[in-house]
Amino acid sequence: MIQKVSHIGIAVKNLQDAIAVYQKLGLEVEGIETVESQKVRVAFLPVGKEVRIELLEPTSEDSPIAKFIEKKGQGIHHIALATDNIENELKLAEEQELSPLDKVPRQGAHHASIGFLHPRAMKGVLLELCQEKDG
Amino acid sequence: MIQKVSHIGIAVKNLQDAIAVYQKLGLEVEGIETVESQKVRVAFLPVGKEVRIELLEPTSEDSPIAKFIEKKGQGIHHIALATDNIENELKLAEEQELSPLDKVPRQGAHHASIGFLHPRAMKGVLLELCQEKDG
Repeated sequence: MIQKVSHIGIAVKNLQDAIAVYQKLGLEVEGIETVESQKVRVAFLPVGKEVRIELLEPTSEDSPIAKFIEKKGQGIHHIALATDNIENELKLAEEQELSPLDKVPRQGAHHASIGFLHPRAMKGVLLELCQEKDG
Repeated sequence: MIQKVSHIGIAVKNLQDAIAVYQKLGLEVEGIETVESQKVRVAFLPVGKEVRIELLEPTSEDSPIAKFIEKKGQGIHHIALATDNIENELKLAEEQELSPLDKVPRQGAHHASIGFLHPRAMKGVLLELCQEKDG
């Protein structure tokens, strides 16, 4: 079952620049983590009790985030919905023809188990389903 | 002060089609409203306790949402952060050089008072600040 919005991922060229801007809104950085598999450095900024803004800086030119920025510019890259059962959620998405890009979960930032649905199924939105470590 | 993510706005061509897709994830429609000033019809789908997904369908060819879809395709249009004092938040944004498009609040959906910050200030993100009616 979908429980909440987990995070909003924003592709940025320079993490420190982006952090400085979002801090002007009064948001605070909870942590910074490098996700080797995705070739990104991620800053987590909690907003309220449920959601984090994740600022995503590519660590390599062949990072998916670098390609996104090259094609579309900086901006919102994906939204992630938290579920209590990622295996089941991906299976349901398959049954509902929501074009999961991952048939089985893989590891994301914050030790979450994640899977993506293709934007063509979700009206242009790259949607991540994730089960948080404590979820 | 920023309190939470209020909603995520997604530009779609056809509201019923988009609702059908997001319902497959188990989300439910709380209401549908036409916002004449923005020339959009909006479906609200709560996710968790804090956030709504807002599906935005243009009601006219000169709607800002129609122009967005024409230029960029369907997808995430903006994110909105809830504040307890919209006047003050827009004033702070001006002082912090965050390029508010609205110097004073105007009325949005759900009788909220809203103002936008320009994407060029926010690393490509069209950011709405809003004070919810009960906020």
